[in-house]
Amino acid sequence: MADPIVFSGGPHGNWKVLRQGPLKGAGLARVAFVERGSTPGAGAAWTLSGVTSNLRYTNAAEKKVLDATPSILAKPGATRAALIPVTKSAAWWAMAQDERRAVLEERSHHIAIGSEYLSLVSRQLVHCRDQANAEFDFLTWFEFKPEDEGRFDELLLKLRATQEWGFIEREVELRLEKVA
Amino acid sequence: MADPIVFSGGPHGNWKVLRQGPLKGAGLARVAFVERGSTPGAGAAWTLSGVTSNLRYTNAAEKKVLDATPSILAKPGATRAALIPVTKSAAWWAMAQDERRAVLEERSHHIAIGSEYLSLVSRQLVHCRDQANAEFDFLTWFEFKPEDEGRFDELLLKLRATQEWGFIEREVELRLEKVA
Repeated sequence: MADPIVFSGGPHGNWKVLRQGPLKGAGLARVAFVERGSTPGAGAAWTLSGVTSNLRYTNAAEKKVLDATPSILAKPGATRAALIPVTKSAAWWAMAQDERRAVLEERSHHIAIGSEYLSLVSRQLVHCRDQANAEFDFLTWFEFKPEDEGRFDELLLKLRATQEWGFIEREVELRLEKVA
Repeated sequence: MADPIVFSGGPHGNWKVLRQGPLKGAGLARVAFVERGSTPGAGAAWTLSGVTSNLRYTNAAEKKVLDATPSILAKPGATRAALIPVTKSAAWWAMAQDERRAVLEERSHHIAIGSEYLSLVSRQLVHCRDQANAEFDFLTWFEFKPEDEGRFDELLLKLRATQEWGFIEREVELRLEKVA
């Protein structure tokens, strides 16, 4: 139902790539810039697209916390960003809903950990798993101020140490700086 | 990740339309046949496509029941089918996961009701909500023997009487007969 959100990696774009690398599985072709828009960027080496969607695991009590701190993109001063496309394993997707919820939150505290960073890190979860022939399951996008980059790295370290992350079979990270 | 499943309504196809009608909201252009395939049918008046996906609400205990009675399409003798595209309301999608689960199962018994018909009605849930600009949220597909059509109608009556169905804002039904 939603409009597509398209990330294009290539020779130009509104975000300059500071560093890029695969963390697990195959990487993406190295690019100098990422364009975040609604249509593929001209001359792009690759494009990744998806849509925002409904919450999948968050319960009503957790949603109240999220709703009280809405994620606002393009905040003044938030000139750093990260694009982290991820794919989870077949074993993850074969689990029942309550089993996935238990790993994600009761055992990995994904929502609770993320909630500590809501005011510092704006985020957008772009879903592509249910698009035909998508390359990743999710395109995760984060924006923050340069002075909060250490806190963002801390958030990533915490999440990557969880049981849930054991189900990530492909992960690529691009760290970005807004083109002035 | 999955291959697309495409339903094309038009002048030819592998399923003959016995009757077609909107139950709620806008209908679809009237067609004589529906083709179920992986690419759009030639000369189609409309095409609807999506992908199969992971379970969204089913818990581990309920999944055991489903796994014990896998849905097999194209069973010998299952020459009747129904294609029922549906869209749920914004109010549905705005609910937290536990709130949607409570409506779907604890209050509407969707999974429990469906489980009574597993051996008679083969089904496939095709997701399209997370495809950019999709017309429906889901394309639900059912196959059964002509002699079980009454039981299938009974299943639909039960589901359409639930609280969950109050969140359906568009529903179209096409009843189909396999082309010999």
